[in-house]
Amino acid sequence: MTAPLAIQDYYPPDYAVCYGCGRLNAHGLQVKSHWEGDTAVCRFSPRPYHTAIPGFTYGGLLASLIDCHGTGTASAAATVAEGRPIGSEPVPRFVTGSLNVRYEAPTPIDAELELKAIVKEIKGRRIVIAIDLFAGGKRTVTGEVVAFRLMD
Amino acid sequence: MTAPLAIQDYYPPDYAVCYGCGRLNAHGLQVKSHWEGDTAVCRFSPRPYHTAIPGFTYGGLLASLIDCHGTGTASAAATVAEGRPIGSEPVPRFVTGSLNVRYEAPTPIDAELELKAIVKEIKGRRIVIAIDLFAGGKRTVTGEVVAFRLMD
Repeated sequence: MTAPLAIQDYYPPDYAVCYGCGRLNAHGLQVKSHWEGDTAVCRFSPRPYHTAIPGFTYGGLLASLIDCHGTGTASAAATVAEGRPIGSEPVPRFVTGSLNVRYEAPTPIDAELELKAIVKEIKGRRIVIAIDLFAGGKRTVTGEVVAFRLMD
Repeated sequence: MTAPLAIQDYYPPDYAVCYGCGRLNAHGLQVKSHWEGDTAVCRFSPRPYHTAIPGFTYGGLLASLIDCHGTGTASAAATVAEGRPIGSEPVPRFVTGSLNVRYEAPTPIDAELELKAIVKEIKGRRIVIAIDLFAGGKRTVTGEVVAFRLMD
């Protein structure tokens, strides 16, 4: 099951102002997650000013990508678990309960980043998402998001 | 032991371009950490566009504050552990090995945030920092940063 738009582009307007992934936040990162079967994929190119030390990407930005890609994946997973097409209403919106990020290697700033998310667990309002982040095909960061569904 | 400048303001120029805390990154958050004895303190006022859902602060921003306040605190702690004044050369620079953040309650966007960091462990190049984040005096987020010292 896939969908023509990114998961975040289906969020209701009140839930689409997030600095990380809100399509209505002009200052934000506009993270976009695409459901591709068992994996949700996000691609992002850091801006030149998203530096950590020269040549490498800021870890807080990488944590932000993992955060919003995680809650977006949770939204899609919850929809699919209900047997509905992604984007069908009500579109569930998740918030982050915890975020764990492990930086395995420096992430070059000039590479397009690819994040792959899988669902580890769905239990009521709580969904656990595991994410690997790759730069130029090499995994540099892993993360886990525990996401909680807001009441519809 | 305290110091007149923020810890990050002593970083050598090459290590002062971080999007989170680099004084030389005009686009960045310019996180500032102040060593106050056993605790390092950071204060930060989110911008209006640092939204999660309306009225609340984006979790990725909070993770970023914890990240840079953690590595800054590690730098100060390593200096103090060597019996030197904060800001004396060489100023150690730490990078993040892992970042764990737990969101206990929504963080209002219109409150000044205060982060308090303590050193949990110093072992060679590795320092573990625990951080509590408060909004209007209420703790809303806790975090832990495992930081590794770059070679001087």
